[in-house]
Amino acid sequence: MSAPVDFYFDFASPYGYIAAERIEALVEQHGRTAVWHAIVVDANFHPHDPIRIPAAVMRSDYVQRDAVRTAAFHGVPFRPPSRQGLHTELAARGFHWLADRNPELARAWAQSVFRAYFVDDRNIAGIEVLVELAAALGIDAGEFQAAIHDGASRQRLKAEIEMAEVRGVFASPFFIVEGERFWDITRLPQLQRWLESGPY
Amino acid sequence: MSAPVDFYFDFASPYGYIAAERIEALVEQHGRTAVWHAIVVDANFHPHDPIRIPAAVMRSDYVQRDAVRTAAFHGVPFRPPSRQGLHTELAARGFHWLADRNPELARAWAQSVFRAYFVDDRNIAGIEVLVELAAALGIDAGEFQAAIHDGASRQRLKAEIEMAEVRGVFASPFFIVEGERFWDITRLPQLQRWLESGPY
Repeated sequence: MSAPVDFYFDFASPYGYIAAERIEALVEQHGRTAVWHAIVVDANFHPHDPIRIPAAVMRSDYVQRDAVRTAAFHGVPFRPPSRQGLHTELAARGFHWLADRNPELARAWAQSVFRAYFVDDRNIAGIEVLVELAAALGIDAGEFQAAIHDGASRQRLKAEIEMAEVRGVFASPFFIVEGERFWDITRLPQLQRWLESGPY
Repeated sequence: MSAPVDFYFDFASPYGYIAAERIEALVEQHGRTAVWHAIVVDANFHPHDPIRIPAAVMRSDYVQRDAVRTAAFHGVPFRPPSRQGLHTELAARGFHWLADRNPELARAWAQSVFRAYFVDDRNIAGIEVLVELAAALGIDAGEFQAAIHDGASRQRLKAEIEMAEVRGVFASPFFIVEGERFWDITRLPQLQRWLESGPY
């Protein structure tokens, strides 16, 4: 089995959402799997590469329009959310707690969180929405809520983010396969060629 | 005849170079033309959109590698130049002086400047290289050199850059068609779909 593709995303990233809707079909097509990693690309994120995407960029007129067009280009439903730059720490903690137990279930939950934000305009910074989405997938609501608040989940996410920084991740979405880094939804065709025919 | 595609580029931009190698075939395929605009995206560039691409980004390990891979992906010859962030003011002035007289010749010269930088590792900040490349296309060397140094060329470029800022250009390469803005070589497929089937 060939190496999996690491897929890094922040739940507040519209391009991360679009990538989340596309990545599984892409890797499956090439007999690969994707390992999903929720991260939080905020003021505490210190990538080794000197690349910082200012928050103003995501609020700019250009990106507002580009996100809508890019979603349409990929055939992914998208409604610009009324709240921008939501805190995604709780969602990321919940993701890893699930992923360490059941990666497939964690992926399904992550997609429902993304859709809640970028299609249904829900407030995914709030624990209530996160737990409701988990319950809809059969996850025990009380256990999930307690896990998100647990110190172990905070530590788990911190380690994940540190690992992302060390590996040269600096934004969302981000893909790594066989040491090669691909930043942004628009590098998916380049990633696809890599999976098809190897390094170039 | 449908509206032309405005193509903005900085001669120091590797992605601008790759776009310059691709844009003519793309627009011709859809019965359009491209209008080329040389700009200088430096510390004096103040786009209305709050997007600034820090110089550190272009020097980062990620972009160094990404430029090589992106050129390979598009089948464009590319050798990482030994000098980075060259001043492109003289080249941009020369471009507009030519473009105002003969747009096709200006495009041919612009491509030869890009190739001199990104394939042959020449110093395109220097007037000597710019004039040599012009002479190779049959342009009068003395007249071209005088034109680049002329105050009118400085004013011409300044007006071009102000227009770019007003139109929401903030980086290189940048494309505008029918009011729609596309930033980056990786948005070419989105531009292509726009030309094929209109707004989406």
